[in-house]
This record gives sequence, structure tokens and C-alpha cells, in this order.
Amino acid sequence: MSSDHGRPSRSPATPLTSVADAARPSPAEEARTVAAATNTATLATLTGEGGDPWASFVTFGLLDGQPVLCLSRMAEHGRNLEVDARASLAIVAPDMPADPLAAARVTLAGIAERPQGEEVAAARQAHLAAVPAASIYVDFTDFTLWVLRVERVRWVGGYGRMDSVTAEDYAAAAPDPITPGAGRAVAHLNDDHADALLDMARVLGGYPDATAAVCDRADRYGLDLRVETPRGPAATRVGYAAALTSPGELRSATVELTRIARAG
Amino acid sequence: MSSDHGRPSRSPATPLTSVADAARPSPAEEARTVAAATNTATLATLTGEGGDPWASFVTFGLLDGQPVLCLSRMAEHGRNLEVDARASLAIVAPDMPADPLAAARVTLAGIAERPQGEEVAAARQAHLAAVPAASIYVDFTDFTLWVLRVERVRWVGGYGRMDSVTAEDYAAAAPDPITPGAGRAVAHLNDDHADALLDMARVLGGYPDATAAVCDRADRYGLDLRVETPRGPAATRVGYAAALTSPGELRSATVELTRIARAG
Repeated sequence: MSSDHGRPSRSPATPLTSVADAARPSPAEEARTVAAATNTATLATLTGEGGDPWASFVTFGLLDGQPVLCLSRMAEHGRNLEVDARASLAIVAPDMPADPLAAARVTLAGIAERPQGEEVAAARQAHLAAVPAASIYVDFTDFTLWVLRVERVRWVGGYGRMDSVTAEDYAAAAPDPITPGAGRAVAHLNDDHADALLDMARVLGGYPDATAAVCDRADRYGLDLRVETPRGPAATRVGYAAALTSPGELRSATVELTRIARAG
Repeated sequence: MSSDHGRPSRSPATPLTSVADAARPSPAEEARTVAAATNTATLATLTGEGGDPWASFVTFGLLDGQPVLCLSRMAEHGRNLEVDARASLAIVAPDMPADPLAAARVTLAGIAERPQGEEVAAARQAHLAAVPAASIYVDFTDFTLWVLRVERVRWVGGYGRMDSVTAEDYAAAAPDPITPGAGRAVAHLNDDHADALLDMARVLGGYPDATAAVCDRADRYGLDLRVETPRGPAATRVGYAAALTSPGELRSATVELTRIARAG
């Protein structure tokens, strides 16, 4: 994972002991997770006159990770794609943080194609599943379904977390089943189990001198923690014994992490 | 104002009496209002290799309505603008409705330029005023301020409300001082003064047979109402005696509308 520029914060403290399990979602998984978390995005197309870049708000669904758009030919973006099928889609994860550049987002770029044959029904269903209001206009004659065949993926997870992803890795990855719905569970950990998070950070996260720990995010592999130490702040990670497959497993996984930390 | 395609709803009832004052914000004012309502948007640029469209999340401020971006040259969009300065910015009004295509949004297209001379400080201040977190990186050497010189504007207010706006009209218009902060006042009207809204719709809005009225939005010129009638639903408008200049004037303006409706 590369960093485009420095993270704008105090220089972080380094771990004093090994981090027990730092496994985290791959950039491809992160990209799929952002794409699966919402149904609105901004499309970039090229204008018919001059090939200028044209940004426009759209709704979308996903068919095996490929965005499915439903665009009117009377709207500029629909006309643009009829002339030049190159397109990209910027998707921002919902629940924007106070600092917008800390938001997770992804750009998917490729070629927009009309689905053919059996894919028509699947694409229509994928769009309607994500955008129920589209049932009103999806069959209007001026609306066309487009599938964006993703060729390039750029994921940005926030400050200092970003990477490019190949089309193959993007297609093969699965969205995280935990992150999108974990907000309340994370708030509960921070509000009622700060002592457990601190034990995790000290014993499993490599910061035996941590004085406070806050959970920023839960995903299928573990928890992102921010810790305070006398040496400065740091970010670390604690991983579950096994990857989770459904949101209902998060509670027992964090209880088990607490047990291991306290037995350690 | 043109409509790109039909509004997907029951066919509306027409007014039975004249609408007292149907003045509403111009498309240029609507576009300025959307742009002033947030600090995040999606930028469309052209890739250095091939001139493909590239959509990417950005933050922005406004300098006389022209978007001011602060982009890293290490990020793809920053590099793109160095090669080809054509760009457009899609901005969506916050508080997305349940049906995303009912959201107000605007596309501003033009040429991105680095501010020069006295404009540098003004552009820097405009960006920082909208994006306080940028104070951390605005002076990093890899970040560049860009001012998007707006040449084309496309505003979409939701279903059936859309128009193109000239660069001159956009530059000359002012954002609405009422709409962005009027959510609570509108909710209060609907929750506690439904009878007053109904009187307005019957006497001033052209629907003497209205059986219910809901306020969808307040702006400097008046209120957007949705009414139910035995003939079907309809949208109408009631205008204040004079345009408002600050949010504090909204309460007395709606009290006055109620008084006029009940005197009528």
C-alpha cells in the first residue's frame, strides 16, 4: 500500500512488541466495500462536442462489482456515452467524517456497455435492487441500462491509505460484510468497553504502554485501533482468530479478543 | 425551464384560481445555492494518458461562485490538470432524499487555472473557509490551488426541474440565504401549522379544493407546497410580500402569509 503524501498528524509512535495479527482487508476488498455501501455516485464522461470531461450525479447498482447505471438519453451523460463509451465513476462511502478527506472513496474506470442477452435481466435487477425508485422509469423508452466494465480501480481509504487495484483483483474480491453495518457496535465498544480495547492494544496490538484506545472501524478481519502512549499517538490493529462472515459474529469475536488479551 | 423527461407521478391537478405569487429562484440562483451548500464534490478531469474521463472526490470552497480546489500533484487528478486544464465539478446538495434522483445537484464545467497575484490569497482563504482541515496541508509543496473558471452550468433540482445556466447568469446570481438552513423551520410548519399551510394553498396557491398541504422547501421568495385535492395531487407555490435577505425573517414572513390567506 503506497502513501501519496504524508499523513497530516503528529508523528506516530512505533509498536514496542509484535502486533499479534495485523491482517486487514486488501485494497481490492476495500474498493468493493465502498462500492457496495451506497447507491449514488458521480459519473465522468466525455462531451460529444470536444471531448471535455463531464461530471454528473447518478444512481447505480452492482452486478458482480460492475456498476449498473440507468441513464436517460435525454440527459447529457446518456448522450455522451452513446458517442464515447469511456467512463469512470467516483463513489464515496456514506457517513462522511467531519474531515471530508478522511472519507473512504473509490474511482472505477472503464468502458460502459449495454448489457446483452441474459445480462439484461440481471443488470436490470441489480439496478432495481439498489435503487427501488428506478422501478418508475427503468422501462421508459428514453432510459438505457449501462454496465461499466471496470478496467482501473483507485481506492483511497483516507489520509495515507490508498492503492491502485487491478481489474482482476477487484472482480475477485468480496465486499466486507461487517464494516457497513458496524457503526453501532463500534460506538458500543468505545462507550462501554474502553478498558477491553485498551487491554487489546496493550497485549495484542504492540503498545504495552498505551494509556487509551479507541476503535475506529471493525471489518471482517479485526479492529482498527487508535492508541495514546507517552511516546505519542499511534494506529494499530487487532485481528480475530478467523475472518467473520456475517455481522452477527462481531460480538463474540470481540469478546474472544478481550479474553485472549486478558489471558495474555 | 425545460423538463428532460416526464415527472414519474400521478398526473397533477391544475390550479382552479390564479396563483398569487409564483416567483421562485432562477436556475442560476438554484445552481449557486447548491454550490454554496457543501464543501465536497466530484471532479472530472482527463487522464494524461489517453484523455480518458477520470472522476475523483474533492473538497472545494467558492470564490465569487468559482470553485477553488486544493489538489496534490501526487494524486491523479492533480497531475491530470497539469496536462489538460479542462474540468467539471458535480456538486450534490446535502441531506439526500430517500429517492436519490430527487436530490438537487449541479455540474459546473470550465477550465481550471492557478490563481495569480492578489487572487492567490483570496483563493486560499476561500478554500480554507469551506474546508478548515485543509489548513494542515494547504501549504505543503505538493498541493496546488486551482480555480475552476466556470463556462457551463447544468442545474437539476430533482424530477422535472432542470435547466442550463450561462456563465454570466451563474456569476451574477447569489446563493439563497434561506434554503440551506430552513430544514427545521419547514419541519415546524408541517408539524405544527398544517392548517396555515392549507389556508395558504387554498387562498394564495390556486387550490381552493385542497384537502391537505405540505411544505417541501422554503427559499428567499416563498414556499414550495405539495397539495392533495379530490382531483389529485399538485405542486404549488406561495410567495412572500418581499424577498427575504436572512434566515431570521422566515418566521414573520410565514406568519404574514397565514394572515393574508385568512383575511382573503
